[in-house]
Order: sequence, then structure tokens, then C-alpha cells
Amino acid sequence: MKIKELQKELVKKKVDFALFYNLNPDGLDVNLFYFSGYKGIGALVVGQKKAFLMVPKMEFTKAKESMVKRVYKLDKKRLFDSILEKVNKSKVKKRKIGIDMSVMTLRVKKGFKKSFKKSKLVDVYDICEGLREVKTKEEVKLIKYACKISDRILLKCFKNFRKFKYETDVVAFLESETRKEGCSLAFQPIVASGVGGSQAHYEAKKVKLRKGFCVIDFGVRYNGYCSDTTRTIYLGKPSAGEEMMYDLLLSVQKKAISEVRIGRKVSTIVQIVNKGLGKYSKYFTHGLGHGVGVKLHELPNVLEKSKGKFQKGNIFTIEPGVYFPGKYGIRIEDDIYLGKKVEVLTRVTKDLIIV
Amino acid sequence: MKIKELQKELVKKKVDFALFYNLNPDGLDVNLFYFSGYKGIGALVVGQKKAFLMVPKMEFTKAKESMVKRVYKLDKKRLFDSILEKVNKSKVKKRKIGIDMSVMTLRVKKGFKKSFKKSKLVDVYDICEGLREVKTKEEVKLIKYACKISDRILLKCFKNFRKFKYETDVVAFLESETRKEGCSLAFQPIVASGVGGSQAHYEAKKVKLRKGFCVIDFGVRYNGYCSDTTRTIYLGKPSAGEEMMYDLLLSVQKKAISEVRIGRKVSTIVQIVNKGLGKYSKYFTHGLGHGVGVKLHELPNVLEKSKGKFQKGNIFTIEPGVYFPGKYGIRIEDDIYLGKKVEVLTRVTKDLIIV
Repeated sequence: MKIKELQKELVKKKVDFALFYNLNPDGLDVNLFYFSGYKGIGALVVGQKKAFLMVPKMEFTKAKESMVKRVYKLDKKRLFDSILEKVNKSKVKKRKIGIDMSVMTLRVKKGFKKSFKKSKLVDVYDICEGLREVKTKEEVKLIKYACKISDRILLKCFKNFRKFKYETDVVAFLESETRKEGCSLAFQPIVASGVGGSQAHYEAKKVKLRKGFCVIDFGVRYNGYCSDTTRTIYLGKPSAGEEMMYDLLLSVQKKAISEVRIGRKVSTIVQIVNKGLGKYSKYFTHGLGHGVGVKLHELPNVLEKSKGKFQKGNIFTIEPGVYFPGKYGIRIEDDIYLGKKVEVLTRVTKDLIIV
Repeated sequence: MKIKELQKELVKKKVDFALFYNLNPDGLDVNLFYFSGYKGIGALVVGQKKAFLMVPKMEFTKAKESMVKRVYKLDKKRLFDSILEKVNKSKVKKRKIGIDMSVMTLRVKKGFKKSFKKSKLVDVYDICEGLREVKTKEEVKLIKYACKISDRILLKCFKNFRKFKYETDVVAFLESETRKEGCSLAFQPIVASGVGGSQAHYEAKKVKLRKGFCVIDFGVRYNGYCSDTTRTIYLGKPSAGEEMMYDLLLSVQKKAISEVRIGRKVSTIVQIVNKGLGKYSKYFTHGLGHGVGVKLHELPNVLEKSKGKFQKGNIFTIEPGVYFPGKYGIRIEDDIYLGKKVEVLTRVTKDLIIV
């Protein structure tokens, strides 16, 4: 995606080329994947005019199916030497090289500097994050599909809920269904029953599912793109107070979504949520949301301190929660696409499910 | 583990302290975990005499249960500022700071340098890898247990094999059973049926399980420690030639294990395997093995070019394989502990299972 937009930025910043790489067979470099569509070991070089991929021989066929037409086979022992050779041949300058400095380690830099001795490195992290903040049509489709799959899995999970004994059984079910759909988990699912739910980042344990609210935070990765949904269900019979709390949070969450507009300040929505929660807002202890894409957490950050405005093409979560220490927690999270208007991508029911 | 051994190395190399950190809620820094037993966000400072952990408030209780007695709560906004303050207070020098340079990114370094302006960074990657190469008794126990769990899951998988339709069904089963055991996957399992098995690093697909050999490479992570097993089973009826090939590989794998000795050159074992495979050795296209511990791949590297010798306390894989392009592949992998004598930790049957 957006390789041309990246090239415009490189011209503007006088960067000769940007380099993204993945050296780990199990790894995924988000920018390498984002700009090229290629997943696997290798590197992507984006010059001001041209771009190429450099991959091991065994990955050549796969790389040829990516969005980048020029693909070279790694013929040197060292990846960076092979790249240097191609860069020299194609007469691309190498004075200023753009690198995602949140990815490159000091060890890799050392190896890189052996090949590119005199080049200056500049950080293109912010450029990349900025480009990814506004989704293309293709990306919207992929994320919609990821949300659809996770909707289906969550619904199936709720229907089967009585069969589960331990918190980890629920995680195992979500994981297994995700795999059957040909996806992978976007993150380790959270299944936090009873008092466990009072910790926002609880880790599921092999403990019997406790009565009361149960927070389920789950997302899949489909073709590189993430979904991220939270639902809170109830095991047993909720008290009137608990039901009221759930209804309040849900109405606040819906209200927040309805207030999203292109050009509106992000922080405004957070203020609306805090106002809606009233005296309970002190129990809302994390950010309201975050962008979702090839990274599970990306721009826009939906925080009170956020300076930016909502842009057309943003996809982000709205996930208010309340956490009562030693008691319970509730969180409701949807993925929102801001196209011409606001669209909720995660559609599994938000009515309080009681099992 | 081995924090004292690390301190000896720091004294020898005149490093004032080593710093390990984890900034990612879902992340694990292997050295931070290895030396402290603490999993979570925060940092470990190992001075020549003393060590301390610096963690967010909400992680304090967890950190207190680790092997490090001195635990501080993060009180500055920036982790590295909090560490600087403690370092200054405890009068530890900060001229030379040891860092795992395969972990620290250029962005983190920039943040780090804001706090530790005049300090010189040195790479302690090799020191850490070297210490982890020889396992402690506690580590042996944990890895043995991880192997036991994966044995159990693999056996259950074989017994259920007729129920699976797609390759991804097998992966889903392995993942779900791992979760039920309270473990996580050490890596994405490989399930490579028929011609898929001819690629050593095949990714399971939503394709019907093909007749013929099926390579299953699977491992769990238990309490931070990995297991790593490969078995190859057969769907349908193997030909005499296929059975012969399996028997040859198995006998070579067993022979290799029986030849491991304390003090023997690692490369010798690889030569024995290549000799045993004879004309088929050209179809054995990867390394013979690797150390296993908190990292799935660590020292010793069991390669033909390896210079080292086997040491008492090593735990490593022996995993010869043959890959016939366009046809099939077979790989058999065990985890080996070299104590007083050689012990095979992965015990699920290596007889050819036919389903």
C-alpha cells in the first residue's frame, strides 16, 4: 500500500531510499508488509522513484506475487551486501537512508554499517505511522473481513459458554476457532472472570470460571490485518446494580461512537466518555482507543491528551471500561471505520449475555 | 538464574552494570527473564555486586516473587530516568553499561542516552548466550516438564488424527491442547502433509491432509522454557521405498544421539549424520540441531561449521531430515540433555505411525 505516498515523503525529506527488512523466519515487519504485501525474510528498498524486494531464493515465487514488481534473489551471503550491490547498479544514491528506528537493533545497525559505511541513517518511523493511519479501500475490506470472522467466533463462543470450565478453556476455544478460519490471533485473548476482570490486563488462568462479569477481549489477524473486540458477558444472575453499571457503560460507549466526526478533535470524544461515566470515570483507567491495522495498536491514539483530529479513513477502537478493584470489571470495545460516515465493524451483540 | 556468574563476567570485562528491559506488555525479554525470573514490563539492573528490578506499580507484587530481592516501583515518567536515579543513589558507576545489542533498538537507545548521557554501551549478547548455553538443575527440570507436556499432546494428536480434515485442524488441535495445559506455543507448529513436507519450513494451510508422510514440528513453552519435537507420521500405506527411507533416517538420528559425549566436537556428530545418510545427505538441507531454553534457538548450534564442543549441561535438538523436492519430506527431532550421560527428553514414539 501507499508506496507512492512514501516516495513523495522521501523526496520531501531528501531521503535517498527507505529500507525495511525482516530477518526472522517467524517474524513480520509491519512496514515491509504494508508497503509491499510481502511476508517473509528479506528486505524492501523504496527509492524516490523505484522500489525492489531482495529475498532468499526459496522465497522468490512468493515475493513475485507481492505488490512490488522488481524482485531480486539474494546472492551474497550477507543481505546488506546484496542490497548495496543492487543500489550501486541502479545508481540510486545512498547518502541518506530511511530506517524505522523502532525496529533496527544496534546489532543489525552494526552489520548494516559494514555495507553502507558512509550513509547517514534517518528515522522514518513517524512517516510510516502517519501513512498507515489513513486506510486504503483494500485495507478497509481486509479489516472488515477480520472483524466479521471474529464476530462469528465470538458468537460461537457465547453459545458454547456453558461447556467451558476454566478460563483457559475459553482461550483455547478462541484460539482453535481462529486457526480453523485460517487466521492467527492478533494478540493473546483476555478471558477475565469475576474479580479477574477488575484488572484491565488480566492473563487467563487455569482457574474455574468465576461467577459474575467475564471480560473477553479477542481479535484475529486476517491477511496481515487485525480486529480487536471486547465483550463482557455475565455468568449467573446479575444484581440490579450490576445491570445498571453495564447499561451505563454501554450507553456511554454508543454515545462516544455517535459523536465521532471527520475533523473533530480526538480528545473531545474522551471528554464525552468521562462526562457520561460521571462519578465512575475514575474507574476508567486506560485509553479510550487506538488505531487498528497491520499493527494492533497504531495511530490514531484516542486519548485525552491526544492533539489530533479524526481523519477520513481512520479505523480505531472505542473501548471504555470500568474496573472496581477486588470486585469486577466491564469493558465494551468496537472497531470503528470513519468513512463518509461512522461505521461499526464489529457487530456481535452488545446486549448483556447471561449464561 | 546465574546472576552471580553474570556479575563475574561484568567484573572481568570492567562493565559497571548490565541493563535488560522489556517495554512491551505482551513481550518477553529472554535475558531479563533468565536472570531474574520476572516476566513483565520493567528493567533489570545487574551491577558488579548488587542487582535490582524497576517495575510499574501494578507489577510490584509479581516482581517481588522473582529471584531478585530489591524491587523498586517506577516513580518517574520515564523508565530510564528512574533507573538513573537509583543507580546514582546506590553509587554504582555508570561509565560502561552492558546491553544486549540484539534487543536494543535505535529508538530505545536514543531514549536511553537522554538519561545516561556520558555512558559507553558495550554488547553483552555473547556473555548472555554463553551463560544460557549450560543449563542449571532448575532449568533442566523445567525443560523436562515442557517435553513431557508436548509428548502427551503429540500422542493425543496421533490418536485423534483420523478426525482431522485440514492441516490447519491439526494446528488448531495442538494449539488448543497446549492452552489447556496452561502453556503457550513455543512457535507456530508445522503440519506439512504430502508434498508440503518437502519444504523444511512449510506453513500449514487450510488444505485437506494429503496422503503420504506428514511432518509435525511442535513445541510448548512452560514457565518460560521451550520444548521442540518433530515426528513424521504416514497417512495411507507407505511403499517399501518410503518405509526404507524412514528407517534409514531414524537409525541415523538414533546413531547421532548415541555418539554425543561431553567434550566431543559438535561438528563430528554432523559428519556422522551425513555419512549415515550417504547419497541422501544432499537432501538434508538444514542444520542438525540447536540449543533449547528460554529461547527456542540458542547455543549450542549443532552445525558442520560449529567450532565448539559439547558441554555438560547442554540441552539441544538432534533433528536430521530429508526433503525430496516435489515429493515428500521426513524429519525426526528430539531434545537431548547432556548430563553425566545423554538423556532423550522427548519420548513420544519414533516408530512410524500409520493412520
